[in-house]
Amino acid sequence: MEKLCKGLKVIHQLSAITRWPSTVTPMASGADGSNGFWPEGFSTGAVCANIKYSNRNDLMVLMTDGPATAAALFTLNRCVAAPITLSRQHLNSSSSSFRALVCNSGNANAATGDKGLSDARAMAEAVAKEFSLKPEEVLVASTGVIGQLLPMDKVLDGISSLAPTMQCHSVLDAAGAIMTTDTFPKFYTLELQLSTGSIRLSGITKGSGMICPNMATMLAFLATDALIEPALLHTALELGNRKSFNAITVDGDTSTNDMVSIFASGKGAEITGESPDFTLFCEALEALMTFLAKLIVIDGEGATKLVEITVKGAADDLDAELAARTIAQSSLVKTALHGEDANWGRIIAAAGRSGAVFNQEELELYFDDLRILQPPLVADFSEEAASEILAKDAFTITLRLGHGSGEATIWSCDLSKEYVEINGSYRS
Amino acid sequence: MEKLCKGLKVIHQLSAITRWPSTVTPMASGADGSNGFWPEGFSTGAVCANIKYSNRNDLMVLMTDGPATAAALFTLNRCVAAPITLSRQHLNSSSSSFRALVCNSGNANAATGDKGLSDARAMAEAVAKEFSLKPEEVLVASTGVIGQLLPMDKVLDGISSLAPTMQCHSVLDAAGAIMTTDTFPKFYTLELQLSTGSIRLSGITKGSGMICPNMATMLAFLATDALIEPALLHTALELGNRKSFNAITVDGDTSTNDMVSIFASGKGAEITGESPDFTLFCEALEALMTFLAKLIVIDGEGATKLVEITVKGAADDLDAELAARTIAQSSLVKTALHGEDANWGRIIAAAGRSGAVFNQEELELYFDDLRILQPPLVADFSEEAASEILAKDAFTITLRLGHGSGEATIWSCDLSKEYVEINGSYRS
Repeated sequence: MEKLCKGLKVIHQLSAITRWPSTVTPMASGADGSNGFWPEGFSTGAVCANIKYSNRNDLMVLMTDGPATAAALFTLNRCVAAPITLSRQHLNSSSSSFRALVCNSGNANAATGDKGLSDARAMAEAVAKEFSLKPEEVLVASTGVIGQLLPMDKVLDGISSLAPTMQCHSVLDAAGAIMTTDTFPKFYTLELQLSTGSIRLSGITKGSGMICPNMATMLAFLATDALIEPALLHTALELGNRKSFNAITVDGDTSTNDMVSIFASGKGAEITGESPDFTLFCEALEALMTFLAKLIVIDGEGATKLVEITVKGAADDLDAELAARTIAQSSLVKTALHGEDANWGRIIAAAGRSGAVFNQEELELYFDDLRILQPPLVADFSEEAASEILAKDAFTITLRLGHGSGEATIWSCDLSKEYVEINGSYRS
Repeated sequence: MEKLCKGLKVIHQLSAITRWPSTVTPMASGADGSNGFWPEGFSTGAVCANIKYSNRNDLMVLMTDGPATAAALFTLNRCVAAPITLSRQHLNSSSSSFRALVCNSGNANAATGDKGLSDARAMAEAVAKEFSLKPEEVLVASTGVIGQLLPMDKVLDGISSLAPTMQCHSVLDAAGAIMTTDTFPKFYTLELQLSTGSIRLSGITKGSGMICPNMATMLAFLATDALIEPALLHTALELGNRKSFNAITVDGDTSTNDMVSIFASGKGAEITGESPDFTLFCEALEALMTFLAKLIVIDGEGATKLVEITVKGAADDLDAELAARTIAQSSLVKTALHGEDANWGRIIAAAGRSGAVFNQEELELYFDDLRILQPPLVADFSEEAASEILAKDAFTITLRLGHGSGEATIWSCDLSKEYVEINGSYRS
């Protein structure tokens, strides 16, 4: 309950400072204060299967009423987890019909060899049997400790007790069941006005360590009632991913289990590739994904601050991303931010080792709107004003490298003692 | 005194477990228990100039009796500090004669613009005047906070009081004066038997944050009495650097002030490119540099463990280095090592995102001689035995990727709360 309250507070605060596209309406709060309702055609259930955690839900299923289209992006880590291998197979083999996604927390089913793959398959089969689907209509995801076999008796018992818990009015239970070290459930729902009517977009996600997604991310499950072809859905997902989940970092480590997926139930307005509605859909999806991605950073292990790092004036976007990512991942920058110390030298030193091409005499650095450094290497600013900015929960760092057109933004957090504490004994 | 005792203990322990080349003898301990005597033709002096620290030496000069040859490697960080720019100029302009190196701690003279460069030049000029040299015979180095101007009155006062402190029997004062957050002075001296006689090799170095050298490293100043051409000296330095200072990481951050230099006084045996002695010299220099590099890791900010990470069986050496470096820099691996938790999944996950090409079914992982993981992804080991290894001050992690011939070794340390503590308030 405490976690939920914290989550709702963070979600509402972030929503209030978010510049949503004009065609988008965040869904009105429900009785429980949440911003989460599934789009038409979806329902979820969650149970406590005692996989690792015994006092909270750790197994959930996301279902559609009828055949849905789906798209997903997966981790590029070479040590790929069994559920990712299976889900990729299902996505490639199935024509266009998907019905369900099952996910457990507390155990990643990664580095578990052949047994792990047959366990993931057994999860899909159990869900198919319970809800009268085909196994290949089911996607599977897992998150938690790497290198341990799933306790399959508990998992299968859990799946067989899911049916009575199914409901369609709230995303909250599902968001809670996929948490690991997350301190609050992460979810959001938008309503999007299209030329032919309105549709809904919902998403749940989880962090909160091993966060430096590469093409896909930690777990994020999205749902819409739009009627849309799988190829278009995949394009929208990939476009949205680039500037959302692929633009965040907590600790620079890419998970073996990263997965972001979207189901479209087709119960709402139709979106075709030729229609301007597709652009609106992509914008709204990116906005939702970015919102969820920021929630991951805010809840990064041990994190106390959300820092938006923008690099401008680079030779090209790639150079800008290199510099922004290197600053965002620098342990020295992250500890200074945690200490609320305006140690700007570490920021330009990180840019300097990033590989991005620039002349240090042209650097210009801002914290929010406060200029810290101006060319040529003149640092003349009020320490007090800088400290005030760094004491905030969220602020921006903007570094101009030169006069090129390249630009990139990465969201990061600070590095605290709690991160060390959490990760020194994660398995126990 | 406490720091010195700790340092001597660490240095002797590390020396005892080092496999020195057969032609090399670590110098017998002096009356103060130190392993540090300058080679013939060198002397050093150190004073407290109150640059940042007021209770210890923070300014030192390394001098040769007569013209010496020199070589140096510098940081590849684009934000290069003023003393590096000046030293590079001096090294390029001077024919082959060097006489002195001056170094201060507590202030990096980095990101200080034109004023910083003229301050570095003033340091070289003051040393030249004090000791009757030419300014271009002097190399300059600085280490400490980035982005603040040097207090030049204090620096110049310090330089003018160096002369009476000059001595040639110990490297200790010089090693102490270049420390920043180091907890002990780092130095060592070897004697090397050549066909034409023996020579001596000494070095001092400092860490202990912003350590992920790129082509050069944090400060390391080496000295030998060999008679050797500058070009040969440079080759030996570059070869030695690759597997020593360029193979360590504390926090993945590359300094703006990295510099490793060597002076050769020419008072001892001659080394030519054709002679087998050159190979022996390169071996001994690499051994000394590796020893000093390991001291930096042992004394990494907040570090409690020295971890040697070797990747074998890679497609090529570059792939092996990619994987070893990614494991060595992973915050999740480093926190698990700190917690003495055998969370091997994080090690293979880091290798998996490194870019190195391999098949996870072929992975084989060892802690010291204890096999943790065998193909295909079978983890069958005694947790107790693993914990015993991880509880040690120093141990090895060996990951075999496959059956290629690529191999690389990187030295790293754990990530502790103290690292966060130290770096949250470094400027104050």
